[in-house]
Amino acid sequence: MNAEIVSVGTELLLGQIVDTHAATMSEILADCGVSCTRRATVGDNWERLQGVLGEALGRVDLVVTIGGLGPTQDDLTRQAIAQVLGDDLVYEPEIALELRQFFETRGLPWSESILRQADRPRSARLLPNDVGTAPGLICEKDGKRVIALPGPRSEFLPMAQGPVREYLARIGGGEVIHSRVLRVCGMGESAIEAKIASLLESANPTVAPYAKAGEVHLRITAKASDRDLADRMIEPLEARIRKILGTHVYGVNEVTLEEATIGLLKERDETVAVAESLTGGWLGERLTSVAGAGDVFLGGIISYDLRVKERLLGVCEDTLNRFGPVSAECASEMAEEVRKKVGATYGVSLTGNAGPTSDKDDKPVGLVYVGVAGPGGVAVREQNFRGSRDDIRRRSTQAALVALREVLL
Amino acid sequence: MNAEIVSVGTELLLGQIVDTHAATMSEILADCGVSCTRRATVGDNWERLQGVLGEALGRVDLVVTIGGLGPTQDDLTRQAIAQVLGDDLVYEPEIALELRQFFETRGLPWSESILRQADRPRSARLLPNDVGTAPGLICEKDGKRVIALPGPRSEFLPMAQGPVREYLARIGGGEVIHSRVLRVCGMGESAIEAKIASLLESANPTVAPYAKAGEVHLRITAKASDRDLADRMIEPLEARIRKILGTHVYGVNEVTLEEATIGLLKERDETVAVAESLTGGWLGERLTSVAGAGDVFLGGIISYDLRVKERLLGVCEDTLNRFGPVSAECASEMAEEVRKKVGATYGVSLTGNAGPTSDKDDKPVGLVYVGVAGPGGVAVREQNFRGSRDDIRRRSTQAALVALREVLL
Repeated sequence: MNAEIVSVGTELLLGQIVDTHAATMSEILADCGVSCTRRATVGDNWERLQGVLGEALGRVDLVVTIGGLGPTQDDLTRQAIAQVLGDDLVYEPEIALELRQFFETRGLPWSESILRQADRPRSARLLPNDVGTAPGLICEKDGKRVIALPGPRSEFLPMAQGPVREYLARIGGGEVIHSRVLRVCGMGESAIEAKIASLLESANPTVAPYAKAGEVHLRITAKASDRDLADRMIEPLEARIRKILGTHVYGVNEVTLEEATIGLLKERDETVAVAESLTGGWLGERLTSVAGAGDVFLGGIISYDLRVKERLLGVCEDTLNRFGPVSAECASEMAEEVRKKVGATYGVSLTGNAGPTSDKDDKPVGLVYVGVAGPGGVAVREQNFRGSRDDIRRRSTQAALVALREVLL
Repeated sequence: MNAEIVSVGTELLLGQIVDTHAATMSEILADCGVSCTRRATVGDNWERLQGVLGEALGRVDLVVTIGGLGPTQDDLTRQAIAQVLGDDLVYEPEIALELRQFFETRGLPWSESILRQADRPRSARLLPNDVGTAPGLICEKDGKRVIALPGPRSEFLPMAQGPVREYLARIGGGEVIHSRVLRVCGMGESAIEAKIASLLESANPTVAPYAKAGEVHLRITAKASDRDLADRMIEPLEARIRKILGTHVYGVNEVTLEEATIGLLKERDETVAVAESLTGGWLGERLTSVAGAGDVFLGGIISYDLRVKERLLGVCEDTLNRFGPVSAECASEMAEEVRKKVGATYGVSLTGNAGPTSDKDDKPVGLVYVGVAGPGGVAVREQNFRGSRDDIRRRSTQAALVALREVLL
């Protein structure tokens, strides 16, 4: 089955917001075996909205609209769908009651226009909205289907991922396009491509590498009659990639490197502390973004200023004078000192120059040292990153997680 | 003048990437006084691409395409534009030479298909691509205009923001839609709306509030014959808002709260240190994201674990036992201790429960204490945040910056 997506909202056409919902909806359609052949974006304009909907329903049997279901005069999607399907609008007293209660219990100001949301095209069934006020719609008439979803993120997402995904999986029935992403760290894109070159020619499933900040994602995509079969087709290819890349594959789909790192530490019942200079706490932030990090992440010292490196962290004055703060020697002492002071199994340090200009010691922008101290001693790695201040800092935290992972494995 | 944008790429229709370029292009069109009336997304499919381009040129006089200019068989935009305009393709030997040199100097593998990028529709002039290989196109024929831009971000952005913006400003000539964003902190959206209620009714310029994590953005948008006039129309409205909201307005357009905070500290020649528990270093990360932060941000302690709070930071065991780590008393000591230990003018602390579950002391998820210690003593504020772990942590760093700002002012 083919489908089109219509995003509604003048703020989209003015570029004030990015249309992430269209991408989410596209992915759900693909997952359910529905081919999205075209997307359109149109403003809150009665003529154009009707025109776009009519054209779309002339080409395909399923149209998904996003946005324009709210209570204001600008919100026209409900009426436009009714018009294009040749439906009249039916007033739903139960929805009206729910709307009144929603506003009352929250003490929000009421206006009669809110009741527009209690209208539905006659051929529509309603999708409950647990978060906001505008119900979604699924209309079926004369072999055509229109699904209408609200625009606010907190309302769109649960509805799209829940009842709409279920409905699409039921009606889709055709070929499913299903992907699994293998997340790879500690190897560059071209090195990975060289190692798995023959697999990149696979036709179904396909394998495509995507370079991300400090890691590479390998997307394995299978076309099959259903999702289970797609999964079974992906498995042998995944196994071959894992055999070639080994522990460089750190996770699947949404798993982050910080989650994988916290997981490894938990398995081993070990702990970590950080000493951060150029990243100012970002490594600690990433590790503590993982729920339950407290079992293995203890804390650390943000030694941005020279005096903090010396007094609080305990790096020797002599080291700082002879080699400067951006040096392997300083990174080494930072990692050892924070390990000792916090009492953790591992100490991880980051020092470097994030730019935008060379530092007082003329250390170039992008020069970064990562230190990992553990029961087996301390190891320091020199890195040279390119890009913006933000790029260099993000890649530094990534390099630290990779270095720690390698010591752990 | 009306325009439409056509984004080209099957990966867009599969939802594998989000179409941020379409939003960027929409904004540029609006800035240049060109109304974007519709956007379409289509896959790498010859029939559909031609169809979409032909329909768009039937409705409007200017179409901007994004993507599909590369060297592979999938890249069809150049040919489709020529077809729809009734142009033949002209081979450009100079571009071919540049392509060969580009690949040679970088040691990249050559293939003859790369030379497809040396073709241009006869009515096109070429836009040089300083980063990649595919030149952009500006075609003018029979009163119709087509602008074609490459898809990779590093190639699209400089071309769109540079020569294309200039070209559009020249041909646009109509009404400019221009915005300025005032960034407001330390006040909720409804409180702000109540204070500036009368201004929200203004028709041109308009004022629209957008709630962000822990702050509110007020977008002032003017329609005018040119950008200077739009700016002059925005100014009196901005002045009235600033008079009402005072120092709650912390910045304009892209300025972040961390930049504003670092700026304030520099003006006063004062320094700050942080003691972070639930945020794990995020506050330090935000402050050090600002280039030149080193003059005023010294560092701090990430006291995620109880032992670090006690031993490294120096919070009294008695305080931790009696009130627990998530308490006003602990936040107060954390701020004072880090100020003293680092030797900064101000110490800022954060302690709380980011979830996902209540902590050992049964402190609820979202309960956060922010402490600010300075020459005038220490002040602690209790906050109750809702949302995900990530929301609570982000809002905590925001609350800390707001609290520091208030002490500074």
